[in-house]
Amino acid sequence: MKSHPGHFFEDFTLGRIFTHATPLTLTSGDTSLYRALTGSRHALYASDPFSNFVGQGALKIDPLLAFHTVFGKTVPDISLNAVANLGYAEGKFIRPVYAGDTLRAVSEVIGHKQNSNGKTGVVYVRTTGLNQHNEIVLSYVRWVMVHKRDTASPAPETSIPELRQTVQMSPDGIFTREFSGWDEALSGSPHGYEAYAIGEKIDHVDGITVEEAEHQLATRLYQNTAKVHFDAHAQAASRFGRRLIYGGVVISIARALSFNGLANAAEILAINAGTHASPLFAGDTVYAWSEVLDKADLSESAGALRLRLTATKNRPCHDFPLRGQGGEYHPDVLLDFDYWAAIPRASA
Amino acid sequence: MKSHPGHFFEDFTLGRIFTHATPLTLTSGDTSLYRALTGSRHALYASDPFSNFVGQGALKIDPLLAFHTVFGKTVPDISLNAVANLGYAEGKFIRPVYAGDTLRAVSEVIGHKQNSNGKTGVVYVRTTGLNQHNEIVLSYVRWVMVHKRDTASPAPETSIPELRQTVQMSPDGIFTREFSGWDEALSGSPHGYEAYAIGEKIDHVDGITVEEAEHQLATRLYQNTAKVHFDAHAQAASRFGRRLIYGGVVISIARALSFNGLANAAEILAINAGTHASPLFAGDTVYAWSEVLDKADLSESAGALRLRLTATKNRPCHDFPLRGQGGEYHPDVLLDFDYWAAIPRASA
Amino acid sequence: MKSHPGHFFEDFTLGRIFTHATPLTLTSGDTSLYRALTGSRHALYASDPFSNFVGQGALKIDPLLAFHTVFGKTVPDISLNAVANLGYAEGKFIRPVYAGDTLRAVSEVIGHKQNSNGKTGVVYVRTTGLNQHNEIVLSYVRWVMVHKRDTASPAPETSIPELRQTVQMSPDGIFTREFSGWDEALSGSPHGYEAYAIGEKIDHVDGITVEEAEHQLATRLYQNTAKVHFDAHAQAASRFGRRLIYGGVVISIARALSFNGLANAAEILAINAGTHASPLFAGDTVYAWSEVLDKADLSESAGALRLRLTATKNRPCHDFPLRGQGGEYHPDVLLDFDYWAAIPRASA
Repeated sequence: MKSHPGHFFEDFTLGRIFTHATPLTLTSGDTSLYRALTGSRHALYASDPFSNFVGQGALKIDPLLAFHTVFGKTVPDISLNAVANLGYAEGKFIRPVYAGDTLRAVSEVIGHKQNSNGKTGVVYVRTTGLNQHNEIVLSYVRWVMVHKRDTASPAPETSIPELRQTVQMSPDGIFTREFSGWDEALSGSPHGYEAYAIGEKIDHVDGITVEEAEHQLATRLYQNTAKVHFDAHAQAASRFGRRLIYGGVVISIARALSFNGLANAAEILAINAGTHASPLFAGDTVYAWSEVLDKADLSESAGALRLRLTATKNRPCHDFPLRGQGGEYHPDVLLDFDYWAAIPRASA
Repeated sequence: MKSHPGHFFEDFTLGRIFTHATPLTLTSGDTSLYRALTGSRHALYASDPFSNFVGQGALKIDPLLAFHTVFGKTVPDISLNAVANLGYAEGKFIRPVYAGDTLRAVSEVIGHKQNSNGKTGVVYVRTTGLNQHNEIVLSYVRWVMVHKRDTASPAPETSIPELRQTVQMSPDGIFTREFSGWDEALSGSPHGYEAYAIGEKIDHVDGITVEEAEHQLATRLYQNTAKVHFDAHAQAASRFGRRLIYGGVVISIARALSFNGLANAAEILAINAGTHASPLFAGDTVYAWSEVLDKADLSESAGALRLRLTATKNRPCHDFPLRGQGGEYHPDVLLDFDYWAAIPRASA
Repeated sequence: MKSHPGHFFEDFTLGRIFTHATPLTLTSGDTSLYRALTGSRHALYASDPFSNFVGQGALKIDPLLAFHTVFGKTVPDISLNAVANLGYAEGKFIRPVYAGDTLRAVSEVIGHKQNSNGKTGVVYVRTTGLNQHNEIVLSYVRWVMVHKRDTASPAPETSIPELRQTVQMSPDGIFTREFSGWDEALSGSPHGYEAYAIGEKIDHVDGITVEEAEHQLATRLYQNTAKVHFDAHAQAASRFGRRLIYGGVVISIARALSFNGLANAAEILAINAGTHASPLFAGDTVYAWSEVLDKADLSESAGALRLRLTATKNRPCHDFPLRGQGGEYHPDVLLDFDYWAAIPRASA
């Protein structure tokens, strides 16, 4: 068979390395489309003079656009037959990506566990995104539930990787940032590092309704080929009866909505955890709120906020919905996304 | 509160200046999307060799793309709580914008008048678009109806700015243009300045149906964040019961349709007046016609046409609909847009 | 009349040459949109280092994007009043197109034949796409059925051009290709020239549902102005009662789907024949399969596959649908597209 059927649970042997096709050169065209598709507004990724003036050099590609691109590369090998995308951890944005850079991806199987039903299993992979100089630009762990090829095949020995609850911020490491000349009129908010308190909750107010054409354009922009996002004919007979929207679309829209309240927390440094709590479909409206989970000093001019970004569907977030009394996610919650973002101090 | 609630009538004190967030670097990616979203076809903004050959130097960004970008910057400060966008005047395209330029916007309150209902008022602002060299690239006046924060607050003294009916064209000013080597086969029309007569009406024939995904992409491309365009959930309870399409989408589609009949009137120099006569919704089809209102000499090789561009919905324009017998707009009219465009003479 | 009514059968006199408006500079913005709209994944057109490394120099524009752009230019002159786009032949991709190149188009009438109903006729044109250096980048023949302006006008003498069944591949001509350092992990498939057998059929498995916004964006990206694609209001009274999707959208989506099975057949060299067997509408899902019709040696490192790409709607292709017993197309078949593509040998 010449067409690629994707991999099954049996294929994910511990330590196996996948070199993913196909490298992609990102350009200003991708940045424009990303903005049009998500509503992204951070000046740090939109204005070349702003990026230069605040000491960050030439305009960079939004880290989430780089993340979705690297993720998209992994789909044909990792999640073409996935039942569900279960979680993320240890996401680190290590080097900036510029227009003209080319990204490719490599993944290593770091854990697997057959489910008790004998039909599926959970696979853990660590994915590394590399640029044209073979430098690591980002890495993350995700785990997915995938079908077994043959229910009769023996279960492998269970191996679950130890994953950090949060990525460590430290003042002298790869996440150190220095900002200077930050202009709060141009950035869109007067609130810097000191203005945010641990435990503070922020309603991002606005809502974005997502259309079929929009999520399909975004998912193809990232060259993510998972069938569930594109084929209404096949999906008519599926569990949901319709096309499922790629979780990365939810992450980016929620993050763009969070501009309204977190405009200066412009740069995502790390992803601590992420869960897609429920599916999004075309016609639904995404809302979002954030909670400040932690703070970390980065330098004399910058700090990092650990933020939990919660997205909901068809439900504004003035009452900060997350979990019910039993600990289960509120049924309107789409996304629970825990990340670190750099933000200038008032002195910057 | 960290999220930005927008401003209310009381906030628009006379002379107040808003420095708007967030600067945006425009690129060829924006030009491609603008073409795909509007159907824009003028060779002057599509072909680098054409632009050079006719004496206009390197390829410029379409003035309307620059206009929508500057307008988009103003929305969080000026019109987030707007009831209606009432009109435009004194729009001037002063300097060309090139791919790679960064636009930002500043607005000054130049008038205000509380409405007799005591709940809303009309605010006049003059907005200036600046590039990365702090040069003015365009400016315009618009007036919007906005809510009062508190109906009990006292009405300010009424102040209505004197606005010119039309922008003055003159042979030795900023609107002077020289064209050479204009190729009518490549431009798409044999009709130059001399071929158009004052009072002439032109049906642009074609129609464009607008989808939700299209107007949302366009409006986000311009970083225009007005809620009415994006949130079907909130809009379900609104006056219209659905998402309203940004008026700039109508302007650009009507202008693109006008290529068929005005292909050589390629460069918008000034906006004299503009009114959004009725709302456009997804699924509606836009048609357009133009009337030549005036002509002005610019140079030995160029003139300017003053054009009234009328857009309608779900109604072809062979009978040039505009106003009823009582002077009110015909119910199918969307847009009444009065502008100057440069056009080569036959000798160019 | 200032607006352009398009041409009618009587206008297509033998030997007449049309210099089409309006030249278009293609950029990386177009490449990003083309990817987002079609799902195109070939590394040869997506990754600058890949293109360089395999000996093909800087990143090129996908030949189909160039083809649709040239085709789009011809629409106002050739097919604005077309009843149907009947076929393609002798398509040759002669020179690469790079971001920054400007394409324009010239067509010559090479045949015409009035239909027996006296109301329509078939017109044959050879279209040439040229770059900013007036070098030919591609050429093709297409024939369309167009309305007569006046059914009483006399029929011209029938003249049908002799067209080759296939474009000739030869080892020392314009289609010679040399590949080196082809990385099958990055390209997405281990199957090179030797792995494909004449007569082999490949199901491309995946399906893509097309939305109104998507095909309209694509068709405007190519500046194709045919009314049938854009105007739901007018189409409500038409033969189909709705907007018809531009055939080039089908070609590009089917070609993108064919990546899954033909990832290394990355470069289209020539179009032998093409027929749009039935119309595609928004909401339909496109599937595709390919048959290897022939093979040709190009060099020590490359060969060419002659492929028949068949697209269907709302029908997976595991049983390779094409024609019924009477030779007519299967009712689900959208496209029958016969082309040559270069593919590296295993040694490359």
